[in-house]
Amino acid sequence: MVFEMLSSVKSKGRMDYCLPKVWLEGWYRGPSRVEGEKVFVDPAVFYSYLRKWLEENKIFDAKVGESLSLQRGESSREWIKRAVLYSSLVRTNSAYNHKGFGRFEQDDVLGYRESGTFLKMTALLPHLKKLGVNTLYLLPITESSDVFKKGEVGSPYAVKDFLRIDRRYHDPLLEGWHLEDEFKAFVQACHMVGIRVVLDFIPRTAARDCNLILSHPEWFYWVKLEALSSYAPPKIEKLGFCQPTFEQMRDLYDLPNVRAHLDKFSQDPSKLNPQKWHNFVKDCREENLIYEIAKHFGVITAPGFSDWVNDPQPTWDDVTFLRLYLDHPITARGKVGEEQPPYVLFDVIKASRFPGEKSNSELWEYIASILPQFQKKYGVDGVRLDMGHALPAELQQMIMSNARRIDPAFVFIAEELEPHRAAEAAKAGYDVVVGNSWWMLPRFPDKTYEFFQTLSCNMVLPFLAAAETPDTPRVAVRREAQRLKYLLPFLCAFSKNGVMTLNCGQEIEETQPMNLGLDNDACGRFTLGCDDEFQGKLAFFDHYVLHWHRTDLIDFLSELIGIRNQFLDLITDGQYKPVYLSWQDGTICNASYWTHDTALIVLANLKTTASNVSVLLDRTLGEEIEVEKVHSWDGAGWKQENVSMKLDCELPQLGFKLYILKFRRVNEV
Amino acid sequence: MVFEMLSSVKSKGRMDYCLPKVWLEGWYRGPSRVEGEKVFVDPAVFYSYLRKWLEENKIFDAKVGESLSLQRGESSREWIKRAVLYSSLVRTNSAYNHKGFGRFEQDDVLGYRESGTFLKMTALLPHLKKLGVNTLYLLPITESSDVFKKGEVGSPYAVKDFLRIDRRYHDPLLEGWHLEDEFKAFVQACHMVGIRVVLDFIPRTAARDCNLILSHPEWFYWVKLEALSSYAPPKIEKLGFCQPTFEQMRDLYDLPNVRAHLDKFSQDPSKLNPQKWHNFVKDCREENLIYEIAKHFGVITAPGFSDWVNDPQPTWDDVTFLRLYLDHPITARGKVGEEQPPYVLFDVIKASRFPGEKSNSELWEYIASILPQFQKKYGVDGVRLDMGHALPAELQQMIMSNARRIDPAFVFIAEELEPHRAAEAAKAGYDVVVGNSWWMLPRFPDKTYEFFQTLSCNMVLPFLAAAETPDTPRVAVRREAQRLKYLLPFLCAFSKNGVMTLNCGQEIEETQPMNLGLDNDACGRFTLGCDDEFQGKLAFFDHYVLHWHRTDLIDFLSELIGIRNQFLDLITDGQYKPVYLSWQDGTICNASYWTHDTALIVLANLKTTASNVSVLLDRTLGEEIEVEKVHSWDGAGWKQENVSMKLDCELPQLGFKLYILKFRRVNEV
Repeated sequence: MVFEMLSSVKSKGRMDYCLPKVWLEGWYRGPSRVEGEKVFVDPAVFYSYLRKWLEENKIFDAKVGESLSLQRGESSREWIKRAVLYSSLVRTNSAYNHKGFGRFEQDDVLGYRESGTFLKMTALLPHLKKLGVNTLYLLPITESSDVFKKGEVGSPYAVKDFLRIDRRYHDPLLEGWHLEDEFKAFVQACHMVGIRVVLDFIPRTAARDCNLILSHPEWFYWVKLEALSSYAPPKIEKLGFCQPTFEQMRDLYDLPNVRAHLDKFSQDPSKLNPQKWHNFVKDCREENLIYEIAKHFGVITAPGFSDWVNDPQPTWDDVTFLRLYLDHPITARGKVGEEQPPYVLFDVIKASRFPGEKSNSELWEYIASILPQFQKKYGVDGVRLDMGHALPAELQQMIMSNARRIDPAFVFIAEELEPHRAAEAAKAGYDVVVGNSWWMLPRFPDKTYEFFQTLSCNMVLPFLAAAETPDTPRVAVRREAQRLKYLLPFLCAFSKNGVMTLNCGQEIEETQPMNLGLDNDACGRFTLGCDDEFQGKLAFFDHYVLHWHRTDLIDFLSELIGIRNQFLDLITDGQYKPVYLSWQDGTICNASYWTHDTALIVLANLKTTASNVSVLLDRTLGEEIEVEKVHSWDGAGWKQENVSMKLDCELPQLGFKLYILKFRRVNEV
Repeated sequence: MVFEMLSSVKSKGRMDYCLPKVWLEGWYRGPSRVEGEKVFVDPAVFYSYLRKWLEENKIFDAKVGESLSLQRGESSREWIKRAVLYSSLVRTNSAYNHKGFGRFEQDDVLGYRESGTFLKMTALLPHLKKLGVNTLYLLPITESSDVFKKGEVGSPYAVKDFLRIDRRYHDPLLEGWHLEDEFKAFVQACHMVGIRVVLDFIPRTAARDCNLILSHPEWFYWVKLEALSSYAPPKIEKLGFCQPTFEQMRDLYDLPNVRAHLDKFSQDPSKLNPQKWHNFVKDCREENLIYEIAKHFGVITAPGFSDWVNDPQPTWDDVTFLRLYLDHPITARGKVGEEQPPYVLFDVIKASRFPGEKSNSELWEYIASILPQFQKKYGVDGVRLDMGHALPAELQQMIMSNARRIDPAFVFIAEELEPHRAAEAAKAGYDVVVGNSWWMLPRFPDKTYEFFQTLSCNMVLPFLAAAETPDTPRVAVRREAQRLKYLLPFLCAFSKNGVMTLNCGQEIEETQPMNLGLDNDACGRFTLGCDDEFQGKLAFFDHYVLHWHRTDLIDFLSELIGIRNQFLDLITDGQYKPVYLSWQDGTICNASYWTHDTALIVLANLKTTASNVSVLLDRTLGEEIEVEKVHSWDGAGWKQENVSMKLDCELPQLGFKLYILKFRRVNEV
């Protein structure tokens, strides 16, 4: 299917399709006109070369609609430990000003869609393969809502339709093609070159105008229109910023402002006026749905908010919670009557801890049926589950077992940031947690050291080892960014339990964050020059094009990941040992991995001054060995080292070094 | 008509229409709920009170479709000298988050249009009357284009249809109303309270997808699609940044890059394939017009650029020039052949200096017919002519005489920034020039002094006396803004030949500019807090809401303009004299205006330290007088002063003082 897709692009006989030169590097050999970092090609010629590349680099005859594991007959989920993940928001990742002049436009006068499409994501595969990526983690690709949007375009996390792919991902170069087929072909292409595709799945919330409202208004919470301007999580004076206990939660119901909050809710419109609703549903056009309901019924779906009491973040205006229980939560027993319409409060949100008694089984069935459809249609390989911690355990199980019944190798990534909760996530069936490396690693020396030496080693599940994520500041704007951009990926590549993770744009030293969700503040939004057209734009809410340009970092990451892959067995299955150094003050990160005859030794200097340190090999392993060969790598090529039991190492400021030893165990026969 | 309009707003029985409290101040007495600077009302009740206000404050039974002067039987254009202008972009000026929570949206879930409308502009009249405004200068209100837009919404200067008002100015509160009637009613309301309405008229350029293309493709310049990415004004190495002479212009035609530029142009699509064009026009939907032409004919209207050689500004991608001559300019004689398609070059743009021989009379007739339609339909009172200096004198004359044939008091404001060109503008028939007070006045002490003492006094035409304009930085971000915000309006109010001019938002100390066109740089775009949703937004290209809040500045301006109006005859017709001071070092701005028994003396200290200075009255007038009474005003109320021939004045840093004298001329009988 993908070959067909790539051959469908028609030539207009003009070389006017502008692309970043980086995308074409190393594989495109057709005619082009180069202008700095831009290159102009004929799109038909370009995609015919991409087809050629795919034919030549195909390692596997992938078919459509089955995961890579299924096609390979593998049932283990261990692949995630060997993954090199690349987080990608398709809209942003493959966006570019294809006309090559003027400003970015979603659709331009030459007929090109400048925002991201699956066709263009396919064109990024050579770049991703060069980096060594083998798993693509796609932020939500489902139809996103334009209602209550926070910028120029809707957030991908405001899901209007859980089953439909966002129509803007269609590429007009593929005349006559259907969007679903474009995504099928894209996943097929990924599988062909050994790249798995992991999606984002958001079962706790939906867009305020989710299409399910028409068929199931009772799956949503509704507030009266006149209460909307004062709608907010009630402030709880006697509590701080916390997650309430059962008793605290029950007490909240006696507070006047909590009562006032409950009064803002309404029955769903079908109950307010069944006959009117019946007629309304018949005539309603889906895109205008929420405005029409507001106009005719005076109610609207309730804005979301955090399950933490006194959370300083504002209401989540672009999403609403799904109603997981048909009755009030157990905490409300005796506190609210039957006449109280369904409402949103901290307990309702945290349905995992404060369930009701009557589960909304029809909705649960629906939610648990979503992933199987993506698996069967497109062959996706895994998901990250958004806010899974707020889901009832039973629903979580339904989702997982449904998916794994189809594909036992289907991976679930938990949106769990706290390392110590990895055990719970493991128990719930997750394969990997997000973790907090993106927060710890940039805070050198203390947090970096703590994370690399202790936290990561004690993780019960693998975690995403990331210098940055779509929610965090870019590593390129961190303190000492010019060194951290190398150092942090190095630490990610060789950390115990780490799943090496890159974020789209990280490889080209992008400074503009994609979202301000984690570890950032409002000013972190302004990292670009004043005259940059994307200054202040966030990928989650606005159109924004990565600042594509050739960087040495691409080569560095490519080499680093190559080395990681070469020694992957050693890292995942070798014996882990902290390194015994000649001295230690908590600023030399270290790790070593051992098999019977090979060892990998990892050193990194977290100081902004150079350090000399020696590795004591026998003390590290705790066993007598005979060293046969030592090679080292510091980001600038391999070097043969003197054979010795004591490796003397000079580490520049924020520098690092990798040693590969060939050795013989003295007591072995 | 306006009373009917205000009565048409229907109640929904909810007080959920959120407005800035400032808008309601002093006249709204209906029910409301106040929240800080916001107030919630029922829109029907609100507009019924507005109707009441209009009935009570009506000074004139204005009818629809005639200028104020015509209705009053006045034929003089002298009214502009007595004007207090308020520059307004309706989209921005009356924009507000009417739901009162979340973020701004053009149209919100409560059914309110949050971007500006004429209905809401009508609701701003009490505020404008309070300020003392008597002339509203509206930036373009015509249908603006969404093609090649530079932000979220099209620039008002990219005119898609010269005759149609932008549909987004309709207010959905006026169900069943037509936009044209809303504008008629608004102008009528303005006239009722003695406010004239002046529009912006842009006859030199049009939007790239102007609706005239379908009927008259030959009125536009066309470039080949493949040339678009390299399309730019040719760089002229041997010349600097200049407007070329006739001979220089002719020489340009011999340069290879100018030749290459000319090669980019094409005949218009109707000539490329008359039959295809004929069929195309029959089927084409206007909104998609330019994409469809590009697709089917491979050509597109040419982007605009400056008439200055080597101008550093980029091409004006959202507009294209109208083809004023059917042949090439006189400068091209013998340089380009008949086969050369119509093209855009510095001479073509500056059609006033480098005309062709065959004027495009059909187009000229069309252009000159536009204003009469606005006059007859809506009764507008004047226009600012955009880029008038680039129009052939004859066309300019046609425009003016057509307008003045209908209304001899119809005023033309010249977009002429250079004071010394006011004479030419006067000769061409303009009544007032924009001038450069906005540039000179904030540059204290030198430029402020030079402007107030010399430039303004020698102007051949009145000029707009403005501390800021829609194109410039706000006075609230200038150096010493907290003082300049009072001082500059004071100087504007009492400058010789000045037409007192305010910019929407100036009265509430808005910091965010509306455009970066003049005296600003790219960083001037970021004046707001990082978490302000309008940070980086420009009113010309984005939705942006003024930061409405109560300020003392409103009261100050109101009082200042009241005083100006009280002594207007003195200022416009009195005898002007510089003030004879006890000492002078170029930092005490001064002016005085004299009749036979009254004088106005204006002093302002341009230093950042206090100054003591004395006014020598007889030396100032050059005649012996007997002072009878002296009152002074310094922004904090009137004060009676000692009667003396020497006024001792203490001026705080950047402070000012006004004296009113009653006197008797000693030698008069």
